[in-house]
Amino acid sequence: MTEKKAYIGVIGAGICDLELFKIAEDVGRNIGKRKGIIVCGGLGGVMEAACKGAKEAGGTTIGILPTTGRKTANAFVDYAFPTGLGEGRNFLIARFSDVVIAVGGEYGTLSEIGLSLKMGKKVIGLKTWELIKDGKKDLSIIEVSSAEKAVEIAFNYLTF
Amino acid sequence: MTEKKAYIGVIGAGICDLELFKIAEDVGRNIGKRKGIIVCGGLGGVMEAACKGAKEAGGTTIGILPTTGRKTANAFVDYAFPTGLGEGRNFLIARFSDVVIAVGGEYGTLSEIGLSLKMGKKVIGLKTWELIKDGKKDLSIIEVSSAEKAVEIAFNYLTF
Amino acid sequence: MTEKKAYIGVIGAGICDLELFKIAEDVGRNIGKRKGIIVCGGLGGVMEAACKGAKEAGGTTIGILPTTGRKTANAFVDYAFPTGLGEGRNFLIARFSDVVIAVGGEYGTLSEIGLSLKMGKKVIGLKTWELIKDGKKDLSIIEVSSAEKAVEIAFNYLTF
Amino acid sequence: MTEKKAYIGVIGAGICDLELFKIAEDVGRNIGKRKGIIVCGGLGGVMEAACKGAKEAGGTTIGILPTTGRKTANAFVDYAFPTGLGEGRNFLIARFSDVVIAVGGEYGTLSEIGLSLKMGKKVIGLKTWELIKDGKKDLSIIEVSSAEKAVEIAFNYLTF
Repeated sequence: MTEKKAYIGVIGAGICDLELFKIAEDVGRNIGKRKGIIVCGGLGGVMEAACKGAKEAGGTTIGILPTTGRKTANAFVDYAFPTGLGEGRNFLIARFSDVVIAVGGEYGTLSEIGLSLKMGKKVIGLKTWELIKDGKKDLSIIEVSSAEKAVEIAFNYLTF
Repeated sequence: MTEKKAYIGVIGAGICDLELFKIAEDVGRNIGKRKGIIVCGGLGGVMEAACKGAKEAGGTTIGILPTTGRKTANAFVDYAFPTGLGEGRNFLIARFSDVVIAVGGEYGTLSEIGLSLKMGKKVIGLKTWELIKDGKKDLSIIEVSSAEKAVEIAFNYLTF
Repeated sequence: MTEKKAYIGVIGAGICDLELFKIAEDVGRNIGKRKGIIVCGGLGGVMEAACKGAKEAGGTTIGILPTTGRKTANAFVDYAFPTGLGEGRNFLIARFSDVVIAVGGEYGTLSEIGLSLKMGKKVIGLKTWELIKDGKKDLSIIEVSSAEKAVEIAFNYLTF
Repeated sequence: MTEKKAYIGVIGAGICDLELFKIAEDVGRNIGKRKGIIVCGGLGGVMEAACKGAKEAGGTTIGILPTTGRKTANAFVDYAFPTGLGEGRNFLIARFSDVVIAVGGEYGTLSEIGLSLKMGKKVIGLKTWELIKDGKKDLSIIEVSSAEKAVEIAFNYLTF
């Protein structure tokens, strides 16, 4: 590859409220400004918001779809990859990402957080799951309070 | 199939302390007594303990291995399936199980909990992750305090 | 594992004529006599015939299903594993088998032959695909004329 | 998606002779001229040749890697996706492609041909496998004699 690319996973639920939509859009916009590549599940909600933000700012968007066809992709996905794996595709999102930003999220997002951490990738969280084990909070998810900060930290963690 | 079988996922870390080992062994023993089939990752720690307990009590054990070969399977796995998928195999464990019992666990276990819940399967927890969202505890993981109780609840959830 | 097990893949189409059904049944019967484990796609046709033969002779049968549920498994599958991967599950059949016997077959079988050979596994063929490259027949598929011979060769190739 | 994209799978071996390299390069160049997207395994040989040709002509190249890291990607891959699936990633190449062009090829290519045909996708062949069943040639692979013709036919089969 002639130039290094940043593959930033953006994970979150396929349906979300306006607050999370705006945060995800802002995450996307900040990734776009830095010419990053968003890797996401390609559907609606947080995924759509992030892709929308990224496209407005000149980024590239990748959608790893659970379906066998491309029609489920949101309107802002540049490259749509239909896996036919259902939830099984979640591990590919973790695998394809250099670093992951979680915005809100349901159980699918939780699985992607687990897979990303298991693969040794950094996970940055915005209003996402908190994890407790043995009565203590697990600090692996880097909690931040703004989309801008999340993206800044994500790019700092890129190892190339 | 001439008779209905119970596929019980038992998930947990590949290295564990004696307390978790004994709990997992007890989970396995209780599944074995009921002639259940353990579906697990096939490696050491909680997986090995559960398989050991199950074999002592007449159960059947399935190991879904991350590797391409069978040598990584613990000594108590009846049927060893090498996937070569690495962490990607976690979704198969969720998929192959009718209901899941989590014993302790690290990030891989967390991903299996997320995948199982996303697939609509019941997850029963023994000293495993607690999940917090929006400041409130998510109650999807059914927390119990004994292996016997975990297995009893698991079998009650079987829908056949 | 306390004793070595033989995992024999039996691949072929989900719909087949009586001739292929009898051959596959005979393959299954011979595997069953040797206490082998059949790994197959778990559906009808060749898969069902092989499982039926194996169960009559005391073998064990594993069905790796393309669906998310177990109901698609034929009546002779001992352990049914629903992958939800569609055709994507074919590589698991190759991966889980020590050696593969192809009986007839369509494009799915062709893919399993390719995957098995790519993984370095022996493929034995009964009325299956012939492969031509650069105008010459590829001899990797070991063609035999009887089910008994196919199973004998398969067991000879087991490396444990 | 604001505009329709053509995802053309180009499959072939990771090591190839000069003749196949030139054919694959020419396939890539013709896809690039039409602003198509090449989906391939991302490694050397035919994959590298196709990506090289595509980049010279303004195309986009996607590499679906068998490894867990991106370093195995050839120098002409625009977007590199490390799956960690080994040969298991072959079905993703079939799944991600609207139509597939095979150039030469070994057993991995054979598996991708089988998977593509099983998924109902058209496969166009340049000096690739010939398939015989029941003593008769299977005509599903559309054999052509030039890269230009292969790409022309591929684009004609796009259904959007």
